[in-house]
Amino acid sequence: MPRYALKIEYDGTPFHGWQRQQDRPSVQGRIEAALAKLGHADASVAGAGRTDAGVHALGQVAHVDLDREWEPFRLSEALNYHLRPDPVAVLALAQVTPDFHARFDAIERAYRFRILTGRRAPLTIEAHQFWRLNHPLNVDAMREGARHLLGRHDFTTFRSSLCQAKSPVKTLDQLDITAHPRADGCELRFTLRARSFLHNQVRSFVGTLERVGTGAWTPADVATALAARDRAACGPVSPPEGLYLTDVRYPQDPFAAD
Amino acid sequence: MPRYALKIEYDGTPFHGWQRQQDRPSVQGRIEAALAKLGHADASVAGAGRTDAGVHALGQVAHVDLDREWEPFRLSEALNYHLRPDPVAVLALAQVTPDFHARFDAIERAYRFRILTGRRAPLTIEAHQFWRLNHPLNVDAMREGARHLLGRHDFTTFRSSLCQAKSPVKTLDQLDITAHPRADGCELRFTLRARSFLHNQVRSFVGTLERVGTGAWTPADVATALAARDRAACGPVSPPEGLYLTDVRYPQDPFAAD
Repeated sequence: MPRYALKIEYDGTPFHGWQRQQDRPSVQGRIEAALAKLGHADASVAGAGRTDAGVHALGQVAHVDLDREWEPFRLSEALNYHLRPDPVAVLALAQVTPDFHARFDAIERAYRFRILTGRRAPLTIEAHQFWRLNHPLNVDAMREGARHLLGRHDFTTFRSSLCQAKSPVKTLDQLDITAHPRADGCELRFTLRARSFLHNQVRSFVGTLERVGTGAWTPADVATALAARDRAACGPVSPPEGLYLTDVRYPQDPFAAD
Repeated sequence: MPRYALKIEYDGTPFHGWQRQQDRPSVQGRIEAALAKLGHADASVAGAGRTDAGVHALGQVAHVDLDREWEPFRLSEALNYHLRPDPVAVLALAQVTPDFHARFDAIERAYRFRILTGRRAPLTIEAHQFWRLNHPLNVDAMREGARHLLGRHDFTTFRSSLCQAKSPVKTLDQLDITAHPRADGCELRFTLRARSFLHNQVRSFVGTLERVGTGAWTPADVATALAARDRAACGPVSPPEGLYLTDVRYPQDPFAAD
């Protein structure tokens, strides 16, 4: 059976996460429903990362086996037609070799997290796109705290108790925080890269670094929490709406033009 | 009775426009419902501009008379509480003199219109924020066409047949188009300023200038259409989702800090 790789963008707000669920809307379920409309009722879509409820994606990658050949662009257009009006879109689609696996072949995931600080009214057009905080944050202190998290560590502290990964040891390759002032406040944009992440790891990082930004924690407290290897040592987990899965990388880009 | 001015932001997507309607959600109706929750069941909100269904606002202004005094910030917070979870927010609120009128005192309205050009999949997180076009547009030609619209003219060509304004003669003070390239295409941002606009005037301008951008019309055809003073000479009216009422100005800013 031919295998296809899909690059997918979605607004996570109306979904109970990526993963198919019995009676609740999910991104995977929505894409499988669109495939069913195209005659592929039994197709099962495998994603590179199982984003939680409310988490967005600008570049989720998935693969699916279909029982007949499609011209890739035609398939992407047909899927986007049947995905409407839900906020899920196929950005790119390519046929791949039958041994390509969206999850196991990925060599890097990149996430963005967006905080909007400042005393402003509730967001309207941008609702669900930021973690909104009224208080200012000390970005330099947050960056100093973030430095303790870089590299290879046992991240038990920053891992959900529901996490199914075999090992809590991961290597964090990037955790940058940039500040983007705007008329009604300041956006803090976190950029994170790693081969893979534990469940709730990014939201646990951001929630903990927010504590550093307010001064409730010192930057060194982040190192202490990491060394504790204890979930109870973690700061609060940030809400999901600021989180975006931006990119998944492979040894060879499945979507590169031939 | 004390009179209050409100600066209001909203996502127009779920509303049938600004104006209160019998059985359909409207922004005015939503704000009046929030006032009713605060004990002001009979309060009537008067807006500076009656935006159409699907049109957004970043700075709509309205006034309302209430039968008791409120501390302005407290009233704005209480309204925002009762406006949730709808995408309407009070950005600023001030007590004004009883002769202030949001509509009749306004000396300038500013609108933005956003087009996103480029061959990309349907928008998800940014759905309803742009007029999406797959084809490229010649911005220089559009600017040349736009120049014919500046100044004082009889704008009958660019006025909805439903328009209730007494005169079709208006003065257009600004119509700028700027291009903002992004990874998946190019945003064209129109900035328009006038004392007041006719019904559908901005969307009639943008739809006509899009015809110039594709080459279907020459820039000079815009002058011909304007001179015709005939609704039938207008290009297509653009869809509402790219339009934002950004600002309403008064001889004295009602929201200026004392």
